[in-house]
Amino acid sequence: METFDFLIVGAGCAGASGAMYASRLNLKSVMYGEMPGGLITTTHLVENWPGEKSISGPDLAMQLVDHATSFGVEMKNEKVTEIKQAEISDQSKTAGFIVKTASNEIKAKTVLIATGTKHRKMNVPGEDELANKGVSYCALCDGAFFKEKTVCIVGGSDSAAKEALLLTEHAKKVYIFARSTLHPEPINMDRVKKNDKIEVREGTKIKEIIGKDKVEKVILESGEEIEMDGVFIAIGHIPLSGLAEKLGVELNDHKEIKINRHSETNIPGVYAAGDVGDSEFKQAITGSAEAVTAAYYAFEYINNNEIVFE
Amino acid sequence: METFDFLIVGAGCAGASGAMYASRLNLKSVMYGEMPGGLITTTHLVENWPGEKSISGPDLAMQLVDHATSFGVEMKNEKVTEIKQAEISDQSKTAGFIVKTASNEIKAKTVLIATGTKHRKMNVPGEDELANKGVSYCALCDGAFFKEKTVCIVGGSDSAAKEALLLTEHAKKVYIFARSTLHPEPINMDRVKKNDKIEVREGTKIKEIIGKDKVEKVILESGEEIEMDGVFIAIGHIPLSGLAEKLGVELNDHKEIKINRHSETNIPGVYAAGDVGDSEFKQAITGSAEAVTAAYYAFEYINNNEIVFE
Repeated sequence: METFDFLIVGAGCAGASGAMYASRLNLKSVMYGEMPGGLITTTHLVENWPGEKSISGPDLAMQLVDHATSFGVEMKNEKVTEIKQAEISDQSKTAGFIVKTASNEIKAKTVLIATGTKHRKMNVPGEDELANKGVSYCALCDGAFFKEKTVCIVGGSDSAAKEALLLTEHAKKVYIFARSTLHPEPINMDRVKKNDKIEVREGTKIKEIIGKDKVEKVILESGEEIEMDGVFIAIGHIPLSGLAEKLGVELNDHKEIKINRHSETNIPGVYAAGDVGDSEFKQAITGSAEAVTAAYYAFEYINNNEIVFE
Repeated sequence: METFDFLIVGAGCAGASGAMYASRLNLKSVMYGEMPGGLITTTHLVENWPGEKSISGPDLAMQLVDHATSFGVEMKNEKVTEIKQAEISDQSKTAGFIVKTASNEIKAKTVLIATGTKHRKMNVPGEDELANKGVSYCALCDGAFFKEKTVCIVGGSDSAAKEALLLTEHAKKVYIFARSTLHPEPINMDRVKKNDKIEVREGTKIKEIIGKDKVEKVILESGEEIEMDGVFIAIGHIPLSGLAEKLGVELNDHKEIKINRHSETNIPGVYAAGDVGDSEFKQAITGSAEAVTAAYYAFEYINNNEIVFE
């Protein structure tokens, strides 16, 4: 069974950045990802990766992954199915981890979980077909592309309200379609009410998004049709923390992995970074920094502990 | 008096990244820096900025600063001399900050302190007297003046090793004098070991630097004298936290600014990021992420408080 110093689950911005640093620290590293490049590969243009004025999501992801592999990190396009701590006989030593994939079993002295999230979808016709053609899951990423346009936010949460407010800095008109009610923090509710560009429609659901090469209109469940340039879906993310939870890693109420400023979880030797973690403000750059930090503390941990597997 | 939403002190990697994000959040932002690009501009090659396999320090810094100014951030090459909280009459409101520069006074709703560090000195006879006459704190800046000469690096860190490697491109002989041990990143340790021009002396301290118009030799604490043309000092950094301290920002024992995961200091509305902060593991990427995070929480803070100046 092959042994790695640093095994990364997830091959997005965070995973790749952590892998790159780990390999510079001479940690034998491997990166497992079912979606090479991660969720950012679904983003049309990234304008907020510091130093890159404008780059496509896939290109940014590829640069990060290339950087890691150029230092010798192995990249495996394979699903990790289980991580468990090895059962060891000598309790004065430190137990490593046994990682199972679809086809293999590997030993890892430390593990970085950078599995990210998936967008919660509305599951209506047009949503998948017009993704990146006006349908977006990130107002901060894509809002600036809708200068003087008409857009809508789908969702009723505080995040939805905040995304709507953010969009008013670009768009001329912003609908909020909340399935039940709009229920943000009171202060954000006030701001929404005071903002002339925003029209709130509660008890409203989109039935279909219509457009050929880009979003043209939405059809509501009431049958009403509204001209629309952009549909921002803010009904939440689902953290991909199942593997971590089974291992015993502590999650918060949103099923995000709890980490500290060292990117450490409650289990020594297990780190988390990026969108699957519990940082409130999640960006590509912050996730990368968390992973880089994880690599450094994994290096320290490996140097300070005698890690064994049986 | 002009009012800014987000005033950044420091124009290095952290400051520029925070400025870029702030401007994307439509915060009116200005960046004050005496050293545009910051300390990374004294670094020959950066190989660990995720996505950039190899870039010079000045080029990376310029990319980050350009990114910020492309979104309209103003960049001022001027020293900030004081930051103080405004004295306000209505205590139900929130006091902004009055920022003094050499020539001006500005109002700022929030402040990001990203002032970085300066080089630490050895404090031995000859060091000040021979500064710029063979004594240097920047191999990148001054290395080329020592073609086919004998030089030494003082220090045991990864930076010290990298500076030594850089100097071998010019000098015929490079000593590394490490007070205790040489302990760079493993990849750089390998490079040092393989380089015939480098001689590592651990447990070694310089007692005095001798020279008339230029460095001629060094005297070690052992009494040994070594002919020397250049002395490069790489023994660490002193946080530039004086402005923050005067404002009442809490520092740790190393005089670094204490921050939390939101990059908040103990004073609401004042943030810190990068090398001046108290993160143990400091890298360009982690400082940038801290600054980006600061920009976001400054945006939230401005939205949640009525900030006034009198």
